[in-house]
Amino acid sequence: MADCSIKFLPHERTISVPAGESLLRAALEAGVHINASCGGEGVCGKCRVLVEEGEVSEGLSERLSREDIEKGYRLACLTKISEDVTIRIPVESGVDKSVMHLQVTPRRTAIIQHPDFESLKEEGFFISPVEKIYLELPPPDAQNNMPDVTRLVEYLKLEANEHKLELTLPVIRKLSKILRDSDFKLTLTLVRPVRDGGKTLILDIQGGDVTGENYAVALDIGTTTIYGQLIDLSTGECLGEAGDFNGQISYGEDVITRLIYAEKPGGLDKLQEVVVDTINGVLERILKQSKVNRENIATITLSGNTTMTQLLLSIDPSNIRRAPYVPTATLYPPFRASLIGIEINDHALALVYPQVSSFVGGDIVAGVMGSGMYMNEELTLFLDIGTNAELVVGNKDWLACTACSAGPAFEGGGIEFGMRAAKGAIEDFSIDPVSFEPMIFTIGDVRPKGICGSGLITMTAVMFEMGVINNNGKFNRELDTPRIRKRDDVWEYVLAWKDDTQIDRDIALTEPDIDNLIRAKGAIYSGCMTLLEEVGLSLDMVEHIILAGGFGSYIDLEKAMTIGLLPEIDPDRVTFIGNGSLMGARMSSLTNRIRKDVVEVTKRMTNFELSETPSYMDNYVAAMFLPHTEIEKFPKLKERMEARKKQLESISA
Amino acid sequence: MADCSIKFLPHERTISVPAGESLLRAALEAGVHINASCGGEGVCGKCRVLVEEGEVSEGLSERLSREDIEKGYRLACLTKISEDVTIRIPVESGVDKSVMHLQVTPRRTAIIQHPDFESLKEEGFFISPVEKIYLELPPPDAQNNMPDVTRLVEYLKLEANEHKLELTLPVIRKLSKILRDSDFKLTLTLVRPVRDGGKTLILDIQGGDVTGENYAVALDIGTTTIYGQLIDLSTGECLGEAGDFNGQISYGEDVITRLIYAEKPGGLDKLQEVVVDTINGVLERILKQSKVNRENIATITLSGNTTMTQLLLSIDPSNIRRAPYVPTATLYPPFRASLIGIEINDHALALVYPQVSSFVGGDIVAGVMGSGMYMNEELTLFLDIGTNAELVVGNKDWLACTACSAGPAFEGGGIEFGMRAAKGAIEDFSIDPVSFEPMIFTIGDVRPKGICGSGLITMTAVMFEMGVINNNGKFNRELDTPRIRKRDDVWEYVLAWKDDTQIDRDIALTEPDIDNLIRAKGAIYSGCMTLLEEVGLSLDMVEHIILAGGFGSYIDLEKAMTIGLLPEIDPDRVTFIGNGSLMGARMSSLTNRIRKDVVEVTKRMTNFELSETPSYMDNYVAAMFLPHTEIEKFPKLKERMEARKKQLESISA
Repeated sequence: MADCSIKFLPHERTISVPAGESLLRAALEAGVHINASCGGEGVCGKCRVLVEEGEVSEGLSERLSREDIEKGYRLACLTKISEDVTIRIPVESGVDKSVMHLQVTPRRTAIIQHPDFESLKEEGFFISPVEKIYLELPPPDAQNNMPDVTRLVEYLKLEANEHKLELTLPVIRKLSKILRDSDFKLTLTLVRPVRDGGKTLILDIQGGDVTGENYAVALDIGTTTIYGQLIDLSTGECLGEAGDFNGQISYGEDVITRLIYAEKPGGLDKLQEVVVDTINGVLERILKQSKVNRENIATITLSGNTTMTQLLLSIDPSNIRRAPYVPTATLYPPFRASLIGIEINDHALALVYPQVSSFVGGDIVAGVMGSGMYMNEELTLFLDIGTNAELVVGNKDWLACTACSAGPAFEGGGIEFGMRAAKGAIEDFSIDPVSFEPMIFTIGDVRPKGICGSGLITMTAVMFEMGVINNNGKFNRELDTPRIRKRDDVWEYVLAWKDDTQIDRDIALTEPDIDNLIRAKGAIYSGCMTLLEEVGLSLDMVEHIILAGGFGSYIDLEKAMTIGLLPEIDPDRVTFIGNGSLMGARMSSLTNRIRKDVVEVTKRMTNFELSETPSYMDNYVAAMFLPHTEIEKFPKLKERMEARKKQLESISA
Repeated sequence: MADCSIKFLPHERTISVPAGESLLRAALEAGVHINASCGGEGVCGKCRVLVEEGEVSEGLSERLSREDIEKGYRLACLTKISEDVTIRIPVESGVDKSVMHLQVTPRRTAIIQHPDFESLKEEGFFISPVEKIYLELPPPDAQNNMPDVTRLVEYLKLEANEHKLELTLPVIRKLSKILRDSDFKLTLTLVRPVRDGGKTLILDIQGGDVTGENYAVALDIGTTTIYGQLIDLSTGECLGEAGDFNGQISYGEDVITRLIYAEKPGGLDKLQEVVVDTINGVLERILKQSKVNRENIATITLSGNTTMTQLLLSIDPSNIRRAPYVPTATLYPPFRASLIGIEINDHALALVYPQVSSFVGGDIVAGVMGSGMYMNEELTLFLDIGTNAELVVGNKDWLACTACSAGPAFEGGGIEFGMRAAKGAIEDFSIDPVSFEPMIFTIGDVRPKGICGSGLITMTAVMFEMGVINNNGKFNRELDTPRIRKRDDVWEYVLAWKDDTQIDRDIALTEPDIDNLIRAKGAIYSGCMTLLEEVGLSLDMVEHIILAGGFGSYIDLEKAMTIGLLPEIDPDRVTFIGNGSLMGARMSSLTNRIRKDVVEVTKRMTNFELSETPSYMDNYVAAMFLPHTEIEKFPKLKERMEARKKQLESISA
């Protein structure tokens, strides 16, 4: 789509957006505030703007009089841009134009990082862990009457240079019939060893040439959701993808309640059974999508946190939640997937991502592997933010990791109007520097129902930068706006009046909400800080941040830095990998290099238990401010804050 | 028991026997002929002898008159020796005493060969394949909070110098509870790798110190019988032994009928099921005998011929009986014994003896390994004689093997009065050189019912040496004895008149019987000859013969050489190992050395298909005489035959 230029007056700010963009979102992106609090449904009528030049689409509403419409007024939230336009934002007369520069930085999310298959291929990264090869054996006669297995092994030596082979009884059982039914032409599925000098496993044999049909499954076993991908091992392509809620949710929403359930009689078996049911459902769907015959699936790579992995493998996880938090295992041998009830075929090998500790699981290791972090020179900070945040720092030479409990704030938990990132959640925000009226954006552009994690970060950051909230997270009681009020002894800022909401109540951000956010971000920031201090480095040395997990894609990076969730860094150096666990599972389905490296990498990942690291509590206390007790750690923010202060002084002067 | 001296008159031959020996058997051993044809029941009354000096026990019978008894006559077959005696054998007057020297050599069976555990120990031969070790791990605390598996692995490195370990899911699943229930004290069952640089498998873990309870099972899976031994891996001792008929017998007595049954729908499954039932019964009995807890059994080593092994492992054996006789496999990976239905425990590892070919099976390989033949300098001939005879020749540097069909003659099959070696079978024989009256011995000293394999060999050899049978296997029609007669156009020698038998019929050896025996021995001898010729050697270079299988213990070596079943060799250089298959299974339960060597040895065993070896038929035809067309191959026999001829000439002169 062609780009259109929008000039905002009186701000004299111009921005280029693709045709079809909402005018209100374009304003946010340009750093131009327009009052708006109904989420874009055209209900509140506050986002009235004047189209001075050019034509726009839509933007009409009953909230506008015929006269206004004829003059060129539109509701910004309903207006779509289709050509170059000049838009005037009505501002109260007498407001100094310079306050318009008090706007915060525009929204900026992380660059999405995909594996660079092409260059990895060039580097020889892809050593297929599973290969199908086709052999035509000479049929036996009186002179050449080796046993079938010996014949196979000898020709593998000769034709495929395979000298250390491992066979299993099921393959031996099939061999004689397949050879004779297929005229001694057969396809072998070989699994490469992980160790140098290890044996190549003949995983399966099939009659004729089916080398083109070689597939793997990558599975992320999340606490909440299970995602699967069906991978074509010849091309690396993903042929099917599906997800579903982990059936274990009925037995507890979070890891701890599942650990408790697992200790009840029959509990572990039940949890194992239901998660396998979910897996089988996901498998069924990706097989259907991809039209792949399940006989041709060679491996299924599983990645999950320590608890999810152990519940799936029927390993008693009870010590995970008891000091000193010792899991039974962090490394698992390959095994037949069918052994744990996965309905795939008899031979497919389950390969399980190893873990580092009870709280830094295979999902994180998979993210580190899949993102390539473990191979990079630059000092990287890997963050998977959820109720529990896992942190990894390091580079190709060393890695340190930890986990901390951020609490549920980022998922809307413990926030008065908190909700998950779903339709109606306020996800973006701006504030008028004079009237302190809000501009809110909701997921799905509907009237607001609540606040999601990324919205919470943005509104806290914006209000902090605008002086609405101080560095303690308290509202400025002096501001002249009805939106800041005390209710039931709690100070709050009303984001949307009840008529503009879907819930028939005022939606507000409260001081306890901000407090919860500060605790959450403080836990993560101080976790990162402590980790780096333990290895003698500091956060300002971080050259690259990788965000993983669903949440990471929505975070407004500048805002996250403003509240002190992330250290200040060029946003170009922040990447988002999405579901790192699934990415890692997919990548190691495709190359033995990762299967080889991961054992080494997991060993290399020094785990710190923050509760056992004395400096953590000090760092945590210091991080319980916006952005931090030491504003020097956030030099760009400091500069903006000082510039704003000067501007305000010059205006009031 | 004290030895007693017996002087036989008029032979002037003295022999020393243990007190309690039967006088008739002592005579046979001394090479003194006494007519006897009722098997020792005292019925025929022919073995009347006179006790001239000393006292004997028993020996009385209604067949002796009061007068005779008073004179000192006794029936030799009923007489037991209890002190030094002089015994006179009544001979017809006028018989030259020198014919008494025409007696054949006394019975001589093979020396029983047991593994020399002590010297093997000194040589460092016993590298236990399975070891139990006891570890006390420090419990985890905040400073030392490795995962349980890592803790185990690290301490194994430290304390047991184990650096390459392999764990399985079942062990991981048990670990956490065992550690905490047993105060972090545990016993590990480790299985050593076969390959250098391979991994040590942690087969099982148990709480506390149970290192003293470490057992293995050795199993011989025979076509007819299944034998098991329970071995104490700490001492090498056999704590229990039992055998039973292979349940597959109901589906066919021999290998071929079972192969045919296995091809019917469900046939393979049925045969697998019934042999496992037999195994489980044998296991039950040896566990009961030894009072060993089945949880403490680490391995079960299985040895059987190619068909028996494949039926047990559910591997389709149908090509074994079809040219070019290609078995599916000859090497099998270790697997959990419980996987094929063996009721032992969940972890015990089944280790299966490899085979050489369709007809030289794991039972033979086990014999070669267990007897130590593969480590010896001397050129050894290994013979397992049954319906099928398997032959191995070679030494520590090379081995060649083959199998030939001897037919059932050695088991009494195809012999008119043939029977298995059971009570009432004629097992030994002598003949009066003048009257041609027989002296027969039966198993159990009862009236004869038939002839078993070893009896057949002995009587053929004796009659051949005495000139009763010529080198074509035909009776000398000129001899003046009613025992040689033509009945229904078939010449025969009556061994026992009907009144002296249990079957109310004359029991005879017929010319077709002798013909069958010649075919059987000819097949084996020419098999050995062909094998050696193929490697450029000859039978007279053989320095050691090892006999295996039940039959071998009864064979009278000199007689076997006389008929040309075995090459002429000092009988001291013939050893009998009994059930070589079971011996091999036991030996490889005890030392990893055999598990390592066996793969190499099996590869080294060059297999010859006699049907594909052109010289075999010539050798076979040449061996279709007593002892052979070339008597020069049997120089001692030749000498005896010439001496006898001279004696006869001097008598008649």
